[in-house]
Amino acid sequence: MNSDPSPSPFSFDIQARCGNARAGIFHTPHGDLLTPIFAPVGTQATVKAITPAQLHEVGASLVLANTYHLYLRPGDELVAQLGGLHSFMSWPHPMLTDSGGYQVFSLADTRKIDEDGVTFKSHIDGSTHRLTPEKSIAIQQNLGADIIMAFDECAPPYDRSYNERAMARTHAWAERCLRAKTRSDQALFGIVQGGVFPDLRQASAEFIASLGFPGHAIGGLSVGETKPEMHAMLEVVNSLLPEDKPRYLMGVGTPEGLVNGVLRGIDIFDCVLPTRLARHNTAVTRLGKLNLVNAAYRQDESPIQPGCACYTCQNFSRAYLRHLVVAKEMLAATLLTVHNLYTLLELMRDLRQSILAGCVEDFATQFFAQKRVTS
Amino acid sequence: MNSDPSPSPFSFDIQARCGNARAGIFHTPHGDLLTPIFAPVGTQATVKAITPAQLHEVGASLVLANTYHLYLRPGDELVAQLGGLHSFMSWPHPMLTDSGGYQVFSLADTRKIDEDGVTFKSHIDGSTHRLTPEKSIAIQQNLGADIIMAFDECAPPYDRSYNERAMARTHAWAERCLRAKTRSDQALFGIVQGGVFPDLRQASAEFIASLGFPGHAIGGLSVGETKPEMHAMLEVVNSLLPEDKPRYLMGVGTPEGLVNGVLRGIDIFDCVLPTRLARHNTAVTRLGKLNLVNAAYRQDESPIQPGCACYTCQNFSRAYLRHLVVAKEMLAATLLTVHNLYTLLELMRDLRQSILAGCVEDFATQFFAQKRVTS
Repeated sequence: MNSDPSPSPFSFDIQARCGNARAGIFHTPHGDLLTPIFAPVGTQATVKAITPAQLHEVGASLVLANTYHLYLRPGDELVAQLGGLHSFMSWPHPMLTDSGGYQVFSLADTRKIDEDGVTFKSHIDGSTHRLTPEKSIAIQQNLGADIIMAFDECAPPYDRSYNERAMARTHAWAERCLRAKTRSDQALFGIVQGGVFPDLRQASAEFIASLGFPGHAIGGLSVGETKPEMHAMLEVVNSLLPEDKPRYLMGVGTPEGLVNGVLRGIDIFDCVLPTRLARHNTAVTRLGKLNLVNAAYRQDESPIQPGCACYTCQNFSRAYLRHLVVAKEMLAATLLTVHNLYTLLELMRDLRQSILAGCVEDFATQFFAQKRVTS
Repeated sequence: MNSDPSPSPFSFDIQARCGNARAGIFHTPHGDLLTPIFAPVGTQATVKAITPAQLHEVGASLVLANTYHLYLRPGDELVAQLGGLHSFMSWPHPMLTDSGGYQVFSLADTRKIDEDGVTFKSHIDGSTHRLTPEKSIAIQQNLGADIIMAFDECAPPYDRSYNERAMARTHAWAERCLRAKTRSDQALFGIVQGGVFPDLRQASAEFIASLGFPGHAIGGLSVGETKPEMHAMLEVVNSLLPEDKPRYLMGVGTPEGLVNGVLRGIDIFDCVLPTRLARHNTAVTRLGKLNLVNAAYRQDESPIQPGCACYTCQNFSRAYLRHLVVAKEMLAATLLTVHNLYTLLELMRDLRQSILAGCVEDFATQFFAQKRVTS
């Protein structure tokens, strides 16, 4: 096992365990992350529809930004020149960037993969670009997030031979990312791949764990597989990843997904879902979703979720939110984003408390029972 | 002179005069308005792109909403059922509604005017509706703003015979509005019309003043006439309107327009300009406008206006705002709305202070001199 050559400002203290769930503190140069934690997504250096002040107010502490988007616009060199992402977007708290890989591989028709990297066309102007492990790290170093990600390849979950090839590339690229990284104030996380194949997941977890990353991500899930398959993969991988380092499940952000992930030992999550649903008139609650365009809410004086302490629920009725949605007012997206993020962040705080109190299983049982009753 | 038959919770105290400018306090059921004052516009029961909390934070105290829009959607009866506008949109401070007249008369092709009122087609679904003075007051009573407006007709500024007819109708309708009003917790303002014709403005000011309204508005300005013409009309009208009642200039919201209006005795202004410009990538400052899409701002680390204390200028560079604009992020509209409203509201506070200090003429001289130097 190699270890990061430069002294690290990062460390992970586990405060309590409860089954496979863990409550911890991940120390970063921009503050402590109280895990388990959910990271809202600020693709283009803004969590859509809200200000950093509102993001702080809903309880966010870690924000994800997308390397692919920021590399193309405004450009990582400009962001570096302006003092890095934290300063650029006025978010003085911890940040995470992805590697750009996921977005590039999603450009199915306009990208070409080889062993060295990926050539692709910009979705903005069609210009040709190339990402390699070294280039991804260089961009992420310019952006300056606290947590940065290894450049990996996410394959379709059920294609075994593709997953074998993608995993091999992901492993080779992980080593190149480690060698390319020079900043000591960033923690580089390795990513486990392997689709829905337990043996591939096992091989990937073992290999990635052997490289000595300060944290590990589980990629290639929540991309079309079933929930039992996802849970099985989490169980395989988390039994092999080092206990004492944070584990990050990429792309999961439903209330039930968060509970299921925490029960299986996940410490960090991110997802565009709560913010994207907000911009599509949809409120998230622990019990299910509400589409505010529904005429049933026309005269409904109650808040989205009675008892919810978010700014939106404290001040606005479903009837008002429906009016904003029907009138196509921007405030609808803002207020729903505030509520949806608050809902997930409060759920994470409750999960953390229940781990510290030693009763996360009871909490989860109650959570799923309530959900069944109302759905 | 008649007087409002019911006991009124409204009163206007003038604290200081400086030339024709006045600093006062207009007491309303939802709080005191420190005049001169600028009212941001919340057409559909939301000041576009910001929350009421942000609106309060930039220093707004009076918000205007549009009767035409809210009558059509979500409907004034629904708003009344939900507790009125203040409660509906969560703005516990003073509010003002217009009469709906200006919007209806703007529907040039789909409205028909007679002596009793106006028949028009909805811009939303083409359905036919009718507004009369009595109907406008009934809607405004359902909406429940503190200040409501008489139903008037705004004619093109240079058409004398149209202005004569529109003025006669406006006067007849003002009397009908006074008779129709039943709520004692709303102040009904009369509106002076008369285009750019001093004799018509004089006749209108004298007639409207004779009806005993608790406040007066000057309509039909900022609709295509020149600035000297507007100033001449303000001087004619304000020399005739009672000194001891607030005067409201409708539709003016440039920094220079506010200064010029205050110097001529105006106490209240409203305008969509600062919020509309914000949604078109444009920042307002006392010295002029900045279009943030301009490539010159690409690497510009300075705030929109150095020294500005607004949330936007305290936290974000022009380079970041330009990025948001180019990337079509909603946050651009929010941050520019915050800045633009703050700029106008701070200017109003400074104008008020300079009236209280007896030096508004010096303030205005300096304001226009600085503007000339930089433009």
